[in-house]
Amino acid sequence: MVHCSLERMKDKIATFSKFGDTGHGGVTRFSLSPEALAARAEFKKRMEAIGADVVTDDMANMYATLPGTEKRKAIVSGSHLDSVRQGGNYDGVLGVMSAMEALETIVKEKIPHRHPLTAIVWTNEEGARFEPAMMSSGVICGKFTKEKMLASVAKDIPGYTFGEALEKSGFVGEQKNRLSPDKQCALIELHIEQGPVLEAEGYDIGAVDGVCGMVNYEFTFVGQADHAGTTPMKYRKDALYAAVKVIQYLHDELDKLDPALVYTTGKISAHPNIHTIIPDEVKFTLDARHYDPDVIRQVLALINSLPGEIVGCKVSYAEAWARKSVAYDPLLVDTVEECAKAYGYPCRRIHSGPGHDAQFVADILPTSMIFVPSVEGHSHCELEFTPAEACAKGVDVLIQTLLALDQKLD
Amino acid sequence: MVHCSLERMKDKIATFSKFGDTGHGGVTRFSLSPEALAARAEFKKRMEAIGADVVTDDMANMYATLPGTEKRKAIVSGSHLDSVRQGGNYDGVLGVMSAMEALETIVKEKIPHRHPLTAIVWTNEEGARFEPAMMSSGVICGKFTKEKMLASVAKDIPGYTFGEALEKSGFVGEQKNRLSPDKQCALIELHIEQGPVLEAEGYDIGAVDGVCGMVNYEFTFVGQADHAGTTPMKYRKDALYAAVKVIQYLHDELDKLDPALVYTTGKISAHPNIHTIIPDEVKFTLDARHYDPDVIRQVLALINSLPGEIVGCKVSYAEAWARKSVAYDPLLVDTVEECAKAYGYPCRRIHSGPGHDAQFVADILPTSMIFVPSVEGHSHCELEFTPAEACAKGVDVLIQTLLALDQKLD
Repeated sequence: MVHCSLERMKDKIATFSKFGDTGHGGVTRFSLSPEALAARAEFKKRMEAIGADVVTDDMANMYATLPGTEKRKAIVSGSHLDSVRQGGNYDGVLGVMSAMEALETIVKEKIPHRHPLTAIVWTNEEGARFEPAMMSSGVICGKFTKEKMLASVAKDIPGYTFGEALEKSGFVGEQKNRLSPDKQCALIELHIEQGPVLEAEGYDIGAVDGVCGMVNYEFTFVGQADHAGTTPMKYRKDALYAAVKVIQYLHDELDKLDPALVYTTGKISAHPNIHTIIPDEVKFTLDARHYDPDVIRQVLALINSLPGEIVGCKVSYAEAWARKSVAYDPLLVDTVEECAKAYGYPCRRIHSGPGHDAQFVADILPTSMIFVPSVEGHSHCELEFTPAEACAKGVDVLIQTLLALDQKLD
Repeated sequence: MVHCSLERMKDKIATFSKFGDTGHGGVTRFSLSPEALAARAEFKKRMEAIGADVVTDDMANMYATLPGTEKRKAIVSGSHLDSVRQGGNYDGVLGVMSAMEALETIVKEKIPHRHPLTAIVWTNEEGARFEPAMMSSGVICGKFTKEKMLASVAKDIPGYTFGEALEKSGFVGEQKNRLSPDKQCALIELHIEQGPVLEAEGYDIGAVDGVCGMVNYEFTFVGQADHAGTTPMKYRKDALYAAVKVIQYLHDELDKLDPALVYTTGKISAHPNIHTIIPDEVKFTLDARHYDPDVIRQVLALINSLPGEIVGCKVSYAEAWARKSVAYDPLLVDTVEECAKAYGYPCRRIHSGPGHDAQFVADILPTSMIFVPSVEGHSHCELEFTPAEACAKGVDVLIQTLLALDQKLD
């Protein structure tokens, strides 16, 4: 069995963690920022050093390709180099480093492969500075129109557009270089889990079989603002109490649905939010995710069954957004699982809760993902951590998966 | 039975509503602002017009006194002229206008009285610009030290103190003019109810027998922030859900105590307050008020019986402040009730939820209050309203109470 180099992985983690280092264990590396451009240059330098041909497309997505022994479509792996503000050293960048390490290992070990192998870097996955998230995979895969994306304005600089940042980056290439079913035949993205399941259950590898569908609702409760000291309880229309009753009801009822359902009331606000005044308006959000659309439909049915009035307050709700479940390619998911088993690395099938570039790619190419554990489930923060040894196990499975697909795929 | 002049009351309401008129049915008339000083000048002019002697003390409290036929201590009535931001045309100012109208009626009708009768204006009851509320009655009655109050800084102008505002006002007089048991023998403050009870139950007059005690607590719940899409329900420590459970528990248990107890969870905040992140810290406030200290003790016992941990989150709480119940003078409360009955105005005994200058005065003089109804209970807002006819009924009772006390008191 081929193994990647733990030393090389440690070196890559140390090197890429410097691009945008916050000094507190994490990075701030917004897409197309000087820090992100430095990370891209490092990717290019290292890939060219092993003989890969590096090109970019019109959204500045990068493709570093090792030629195959036959004239076939490329098998692709990679992720993104950008981070959220004060993010960690693993989200996205680990997928890029793993693809690099896979290609480096295959070159060093002189392993023959029929298909070209490509390491990919997606532009602006996080959407932390220019919304939306997964912007460039979205353009390539027909989810977003390029013109709209170019006009996306930076959250921190008034009027500064993504288009301007792209132009200045020096990484814009030709549209014909875009990922497409004409030139590529499969994509495997390695990523940290960003949740606690693999670690808590003792698994090294998650064979990701899809992305959970989700709905996000905002609930509004309208009561009446009155003085805390003068209004007898029976005359009150307390919007916070109405919201509390509904949150409790949602917990009670949603817990009866499938145990894999996750739901979160993450955001709440009250008006006027003064300790001596009964709140007249309270809003909260509900985010609910499950792989099975039927379960999501049950969540929606529950929401739609809420009464229009609770403790004298008017109840309303609206969908903020929704996302359908994405199923990854069964052959690829099986292959990841087989390869993990071959190494003796404990592996389970898992759905992804968060979104990833791979989920857009799944529309145009056979796609899957490999998850490695996140210590205590931390992500999108400086505490985000996966030991280099655990990362290396993921890369091993990635290498073996690429080589197995090289045999299995046409 | 003497009646006040409805026409004069309407004129006063129209006149004083212009000082700080917001143009939307209310006033912003911070203490010692140009608008408040104009209202004071109007008070002085009108009181001098009926032959009252107007003096101020060292906190700029104003005293307009009609001499009595005998050498006795004065019977006092009045309230405050300052308002909250975008407050109404009745809170405070109605008590001043009613005292003015009472004295005017007694002069016009040439009603003899043994005791001097004084209309009083308290400085800075609201504490809307310079904290705390009830500042000057507090200084006079030994609740606050004058030096600290003079150093109170405006909320809107950095470094601008109450002492400076006082000096510039032109209304500072001698300390010897302060209200005291040596010179005054009773105080009756007329005020709007600021709640819905009198209107809802069909009463014209509330004979206020005291002020509710209150406690204000802040509760804090500490859980763990995790990704909404990756963290199975069983691994969560959701601080908002812990807070929801406690709010529901407080409602369930507090509702079993005395029905006159009022309690409010008016303020809530969640951190990081993002729809896709499980909240790691939530805070809310509980304000609870009741006239009987025993009931307040039961509220505290309930708070202290809360477990230290709920749904995996750490629970803590701290008293933000508390106020003891104040009992008004039984002779004065009875007198208000008798006088209302004499006019045939439906009257009930009532406790005050909010604080008033009268509650501090109750420590040094026999004191009570007269409440008139607030339409729909609105107060501290531009919707605050009491029809002139309802105000006039309150003034009738005030006049009769002053005259009855003139007979009853030594």
